[in-house]
Amino acid sequence: MRAVLVNGTAPADAGHGVDVRDRGLNYGDGLFETMALQRGRVRFLDAHLQRLESGCARLGIAFPGIALLKAEIAAIVSSHVEGVVKIVITRGAGGRGYRPSNETAPTRIVTLHDAPTSTSRSIVIRWCDMRLSRNPTLAGIKHLNRLEQVLAQGEWSDPRVEEGLMLDYEGELVCGTSSNIFLVRNGELVTPDLRYCGVRGIMRAAVINAAKELNIPVHEEPLWPDDLDSAVEVFVTNAVRGVRAVVALADRAWEHGAITRSIGEVLDIDA
Amino acid sequence: MRAVLVNGTAPADAGHGVDVRDRGLNYGDGLFETMALQRGRVRFLDAHLQRLESGCARLGIAFPGIALLKAEIAAIVSSHVEGVVKIVITRGAGGRGYRPSNETAPTRIVTLHDAPTSTSRSIVIRWCDMRLSRNPTLAGIKHLNRLEQVLAQGEWSDPRVEEGLMLDYEGELVCGTSSNIFLVRNGELVTPDLRYCGVRGIMRAAVINAAKELNIPVHEEPLWPDDLDSAVEVFVTNAVRGVRAVVALADRAWEHGAITRSIGEVLDIDA
Repeated sequence: MRAVLVNGTAPADAGHGVDVRDRGLNYGDGLFETMALQRGRVRFLDAHLQRLESGCARLGIAFPGIALLKAEIAAIVSSHVEGVVKIVITRGAGGRGYRPSNETAPTRIVTLHDAPTSTSRSIVIRWCDMRLSRNPTLAGIKHLNRLEQVLAQGEWSDPRVEEGLMLDYEGELVCGTSSNIFLVRNGELVTPDLRYCGVRGIMRAAVINAAKELNIPVHEEPLWPDDLDSAVEVFVTNAVRGVRAVVALADRAWEHGAITRSIGEVLDIDA
Repeated sequence: MRAVLVNGTAPADAGHGVDVRDRGLNYGDGLFETMALQRGRVRFLDAHLQRLESGCARLGIAFPGIALLKAEIAAIVSSHVEGVVKIVITRGAGGRGYRPSNETAPTRIVTLHDAPTSTSRSIVIRWCDMRLSRNPTLAGIKHLNRLEQVLAQGEWSDPRVEEGLMLDYEGELVCGTSSNIFLVRNGELVTPDLRYCGVRGIMRAAVINAAKELNIPVHEEPLWPDDLDSAVEVFVTNAVRGVRAVVALADRAWEHGAITRSIGEVLDIDA
């Protein structure tokens, strides 16, 4: 972590920056965004802030406002040109037990981190044993209840495996631990509809837009593991790591194919 | 909050007591216990610490040890005789993204709070619209991913309604927002088996033991809302609030009956 602002102020000590009573800590009662800082610009900044605003609305947390967050992001980025910017918004400190109170002022934490070291554009992935629970009320938003993803990523340590795919408890294919997934079949894109769980990624939306530009049809629908059988290309998406072709998953293998490459080109991601 | 220890030390300012990078804050990557301080003693202390230890084992968090936690609880309780003691254990600060690292040292937060103001022994409850998601891997333990309970408690503000019942997404009856539920029928106790979700409450276990002392059979099994039709008594349990008879739920009403009273007596809870 290279810099931090808590409610607009750099704490004297980031190791003691957050209130013990913060509801983010106590209940995961909040949301976050993780954004790529590239060539001095935060990519998809407006889309990230819009998702954050809509997540706040879903959870009934007062949104701090686009202008304030943009100012704090600009301050934390300062003269840096590459990195990762993270925003955490929680419902604030206090309140009696689980009950959300109108009296807590939301907490804003804006931090700047180093860019990821691995920038492979084609990766090996695995299946995770950990399943995602279904909860339509929380589906799509990037809330702070992430134990399932933590336990899923704890399943492997081989650095050659860069992502793990997750099913929900009914066996539907949902996403990677920190990415969305797209399959290419019959010249079209398909991606899980995320009606029960998973995060609606900002890069996922960017890929859907890029596909439209390329006149590639995109279908958001329920997918199952055996849908991989008919896929001729597979890729995963993440706002920080971009579009990454999946070249191996257990006993399956794919090429880093033409459609994945053309999506990456539209999105200005080096293939 | 009357007192706080973070990793054994009282922070200069509880409003800045916790690391910005703490995984409890960022992912809900941790566990907690909430315990009743009564007449100078922490009730069911050993049972709480055992559940915390088993929760740490489930999540792969290094347990700080019974002796250390008991010493910190004794220090925070000091000369107080009534109140609520809370322990939060997180996987610690840092690590790269979701992936749990062996390098983070767990965070311990021990706090002392006022006892709850309401001590009603018979209460009115309601149904919550918010459902619990099913996740057997996380079922039973008191982890920090509690958005479902937060949103459920946010559904009502009438202080005369003291608890809300929650179903899971398949419609099974699971628990209250911060309590377990027992039904009395045919002179026996039944309570949800919590195989998919819900917390295995310490007071729930104490009630099961008390029932054995009274030669009242107890069945842990899947329950559904219409199981309430055959219940002649209903009560909810919570380590801080004890055993509370449910006297009204929507259009249903029950007496604070003999079995509920006798369980309360065995547990030394004023009826």
